[in-house]
Amino acid sequence: MDALARIESSLADAVLSAETSGTPPRLAAALRHAVFPKGARIRPRLTLAVAAACGDNQPRLASAAAAAIELLHCASLVHDDLPCFDDADMRRGRPSVHRAFGEPLAVLAGDALIVLAFQTVARAGCGAPERLGPVINAIGDGVGVPFGIVAGQAWECEPRADLSEYQRQKTGALFAAASVAGAAAAGVADAEAWRLLGDRLGEAFQVADDLRDAVEDEASIGKPVGRDKALGRPSAVLQLGLDGAVARLKTLANAAVESIPDCPGRTLLRAAMLEEVGRLLPRKLAAA
Amino acid sequence: MDALARIESSLADAVLSAETSGTPPRLAAALRHAVFPKGARIRPRLTLAVAAACGDNQPRLASAAAAAIELLHCASLVHDDLPCFDDADMRRGRPSVHRAFGEPLAVLAGDALIVLAFQTVARAGCGAPERLGPVINAIGDGVGVPFGIVAGQAWECEPRADLSEYQRQKTGALFAAASVAGAAAAGVADAEAWRLLGDRLGEAFQVADDLRDAVEDEASIGKPVGRDKALGRPSAVLQLGLDGAVARLKTLANAAVESIPDCPGRTLLRAAMLEEVGRLLPRKLAAA
Repeated sequence: MDALARIESSLADAVLSAETSGTPPRLAAALRHAVFPKGARIRPRLTLAVAAACGDNQPRLASAAAAAIELLHCASLVHDDLPCFDDADMRRGRPSVHRAFGEPLAVLAGDALIVLAFQTVARAGCGAPERLGPVINAIGDGVGVPFGIVAGQAWECEPRADLSEYQRQKTGALFAAASVAGAAAAGVADAEAWRLLGDRLGEAFQVADDLRDAVEDEASIGKPVGRDKALGRPSAVLQLGLDGAVARLKTLANAAVESIPDCPGRTLLRAAMLEEVGRLLPRKLAAA
Repeated sequence: MDALARIESSLADAVLSAETSGTPPRLAAALRHAVFPKGARIRPRLTLAVAAACGDNQPRLASAAAAAIELLHCASLVHDDLPCFDDADMRRGRPSVHRAFGEPLAVLAGDALIVLAFQTVARAGCGAPERLGPVINAIGDGVGVPFGIVAGQAWECEPRADLSEYQRQKTGALFAAASVAGAAAAGVADAEAWRLLGDRLGEAFQVADDLRDAVEDEASIGKPVGRDKALGRPSAVLQLGLDGAVARLKTLANAAVESIPDCPGRTLLRAAMLEEVGRLLPRKLAAA
């Protein structure tokens, strides 16, 4: 089974586990709406790519870790779209969860997705229980306090924000967790050595996102554009200009590939990562 | 160290882990506000009482499980108090988190507390990694989908709610998780046998809460009263009358004590539980 099929299968199992009789049906529908149809699944693909490069000898745990990372990403989108944050009507080309199901169910769906992420990993841990702690710690670090995406989002509520912390936590932390969790699921003792790859990919992804926000139109990326400028949010394009941001993206992408630690599948992973980061540049700019 | 001191110490460690430099300071303050000063800590005391009755040979894991249960309880209070749910201004005699810190930080504080619960358990699992999966599964079941407190709360968003599921999930599920997690942390193979104790205690606690809402005043319980009647919520007092609800509470409390499985510390646990349930009846009614 290829990586994307493994991810979709693990996510389908996780969401299905919430759809037994006795679950509030609208909550179950909101969870499905938040997770399907698929986004780029870029973070869980990173988890599986790292696990594969490290031997992937507990594939069920690696798939669960990948699914957990994506469930947490989906949870953060659902809560970020709430009226008290971005108040976004659209996500992935469809109504956001709070527009489709109302604000209370959007809060609860996000909560349920966070819990489901940890349930998914715990259920898959019996084959290698000694790896469960490291995998859950990696995932928790990426999403919680002090430095995960929840903390990153909370910088928006501070009178003075540390911009580098904001960006690293809000986007980079989950990429770092995706990378470290993949190594931990494959039994790598020093899984933390994989953090730098995720950090740099996350930063590259953030720059690419800023570029898309600046140059794409709403129809092609499925969510409103020009939001950074409108909301006065920090953006690589506003800081560095369009050309500067493109150059920064390329530097970060190369640095990410260079930071891959020694491992059995290093050559293949480098090639896969080069292809991955090559796709980050918005089509309009790649064609120019 | 007695049970309450262990709980407060574990909670203090967990909240402190969020207060490193680099965390958004208002988020850290919101977390502390949500967890301290202490509530009755009735659920984590159940976890430690069950663990003690089962030998408690991994006390660090049991304390972490107890803290996780309380962190999840605090998270549910923070989100339940939000304007889109109960819109409660007060909690434990102080402003609710969204009144003190604003709605965005209340959403994020709840999210962070959920993650912190799982981080707390994972960090304590290295002494007995094979118990980590069962403990996390027990806790996840109590709070997530399909049957945990998030699902219970979501029944309020359905056009037709199953009232017994609503009550069992919204209150009972976390008591059941507290009981099962305590047994799992102590290495009990059939930890599920401890679910019935938690279920019954949870139901008794719900009836006691309904009684307090009906007969106490705001100053003595630190939150608004008469809310069930005002909001048309299901309540044992509205269903059974005051005397009927008191009788139901006593029946449930006895059933809970009778359901304690065989274990080394059964006699002591029975005595402790009898004392615990004896405190559930509101003072005004106990004195009458």
